[in-house]
Amino acid sequence: MDPGTTQDAARITPAEIAALRRALEIAADPAVPLGPNPRVGCVLLAADGTILAEGHHRGAGTAHAEADALARARELPGAPAALRGATAVVTLEPCDHTGRTAPCTQALLEAGIARVVIARRDPNPQAAGGIDRLHAAGVEVVGDVPAELAATAAALNRGWEHGLVHARPLVTAKTALTLDGRAAAADGTSRWITGPAAREEVHRLRTTCDAVLVGTGTARSDRPTLTARRPDGTLHPRQPLRVVMGTSEAPDLPAVDGAGEALHLPTRDPSAVLATLFDRGIRHVLLEGGPTLAAAFLRAGLVDELIVHLAPTLLGAGRPGVADLGITTLAQRLDLELTDVASLPTPGGARDLRLTLRPRTTPAPA
Amino acid sequence: MDPGTTQDAARITPAEIAALRRALEIAADPAVPLGPNPRVGCVLLAADGTILAEGHHRGAGTAHAEADALARARELPGAPAALRGATAVVTLEPCDHTGRTAPCTQALLEAGIARVVIARRDPNPQAAGGIDRLHAAGVEVVGDVPAELAATAAALNRGWEHGLVHARPLVTAKTALTLDGRAAAADGTSRWITGPAAREEVHRLRTTCDAVLVGTGTARSDRPTLTARRPDGTLHPRQPLRVVMGTSEAPDLPAVDGAGEALHLPTRDPSAVLATLFDRGIRHVLLEGGPTLAAAFLRAGLVDELIVHLAPTLLGAGRPGVADLGITTLAQRLDLELTDVASLPTPGGARDLRLTLRPRTTPAPA
Repeated sequence: MDPGTTQDAARITPAEIAALRRALEIAADPAVPLGPNPRVGCVLLAADGTILAEGHHRGAGTAHAEADALARARELPGAPAALRGATAVVTLEPCDHTGRTAPCTQALLEAGIARVVIARRDPNPQAAGGIDRLHAAGVEVVGDVPAELAATAAALNRGWEHGLVHARPLVTAKTALTLDGRAAAADGTSRWITGPAAREEVHRLRTTCDAVLVGTGTARSDRPTLTARRPDGTLHPRQPLRVVMGTSEAPDLPAVDGAGEALHLPTRDPSAVLATLFDRGIRHVLLEGGPTLAAAFLRAGLVDELIVHLAPTLLGAGRPGVADLGITTLAQRLDLELTDVASLPTPGGARDLRLTLRPRTTPAPA
Repeated sequence: MDPGTTQDAARITPAEIAALRRALEIAADPAVPLGPNPRVGCVLLAADGTILAEGHHRGAGTAHAEADALARARELPGAPAALRGATAVVTLEPCDHTGRTAPCTQALLEAGIARVVIARRDPNPQAAGGIDRLHAAGVEVVGDVPAELAATAAALNRGWEHGLVHARPLVTAKTALTLDGRAAAADGTSRWITGPAAREEVHRLRTTCDAVLVGTGTARSDRPTLTARRPDGTLHPRQPLRVVMGTSEAPDLPAVDGAGEALHLPTRDPSAVLATLFDRGIRHVLLEGGPTLAAAFLRAGLVDELIVHLAPTLLGAGRPGVADLGITTLAQRLDLELTDVASLPTPGGARDLRLTLRPRTTPAPA
């Protein structure tokens, strides 16, 4: 949020920065489902900077973060007087519309909140307007938060925000490749091209996505569980929907206690799959299928982010990591923009790279 | 050089550090040919730290760096008295044997040099022993130089040192790949996969190698000049020998004024090529051929260093960057060790990666 657009040039205080960190932490509670609602956290501070109460949103139909925090504050001795003149620190602009719950702006004003710190403006045109409403009522609004915290607030709901803008889920494609672009050796063996650090990262990635998607080919050959596990083998609290797409025969995904629901979508059309998943409330899809699935989504322009775990090893032959893209000459190449490079060290000394890329919006220079 | 192995625990002085930087700079003079002699620089310092003279070696049959510097010092007014008690700062341990020139140790002792700073011990058993000889004659020897300068001294002659140990040239293979491991599109187009920064780097790399090697296939399809050029198109002062290997027909390399000599070796055997080049005094070969040549050297275990310019782009089809290595299953993979990762930005925003790798000496952990 650009502070220049607000009427106040109020500065965030150290106590409010600490409260915002806490609000971001509780918003990301792994017990909260992902899906079509944003994750939001709220911390209420007394005039002296001490925490009065905290709250967060727990998914569709439950109280918004502000309402949750206010309800907790009202259980305290001295409430509601303590709320008069208090500050609300929120990870997302308070809503100003009546949905299944009343507008948060109204709740904050009724409680007598005098100052609101907001890490991210609501991109949802239906819900936005909160800042203007609070301003109009004389509340001091602080939108200039440290860049790192603004980025965390943006990342928290990036699937949800993507859905508002594009009406389809955000798609992250993940692949493990050798230096020469192979996803498997000539005999089909592919476990493991990358080291334990890269594999653990995939499990963490699964917990941040609503759904994991593979093709029938991968379902047949790898029999993946598509669960999000910790290094010790136990399941993360949040498990993705497990989706297999394709018209070929494929075995059921292995039944695992605590795993996400399994779904088979009998189509080869990436757009159709994304539309179905969006209707089910899915906002972020992790593409973990093989080269054919990755190529189908890339050809359709439906990959928003590509994460490549690159292993410093050569095979010289075997299954290419990306299947035919319909490209025959260099000028038609699919240019990407490298947004991040990190090394993933392994105790024994092997070092995979993680490359994060997104499609280029402008042509690459020659 | 490990200072613990010398009898003195003498510390290098700031004036000596500056002199060593200068000695390394003049040793690397681009007018000096590479090949079978080490590049060496020498700076003579008076007792008060001022520079008396500097010298460097200019290739087989010419004066050694120490002799060159001493000869220049003797042309000064006040010589030879000024040399009594002076310090010699050298990039390589002074030789102690009589070859085409007299031993440098003897020359230093006769001149009355009292202290010698040495950036790198001579790995050549024929020439080594200089430190011991100087010590025995009562000269103070300083071997503990800053790590960065020791590394520069080592890098200066790494082809030469490799030749002493392995009796064949050091081999650096360089390749430009897409993210999915392609070296060319399906129709053979490959110019340019990488951006200008990566291409400029290749030219700089050529000036640091004695020879550039391609296969007849590349000579036919790309008609490369194999010259080392600056971004403005002019030639670098030092040009590599230009070698084409293979038994197929290949056109002569383009004639370019100022380019290195061209050589066609009618064999497909990497060992035979390296033996021939070694006999010609070549100590560092840059492999720039296509996937077949790279694979032949990799299969033979004759790649010491691999430099990959990785472009953030996808082709989905086309010529693989590395041809068949005879590997059929993942367990046989050719593991490498990633020693460096750097990004090569291009003004327009494209960013290639440079990965530097070497073969692993121990198996990679699972």
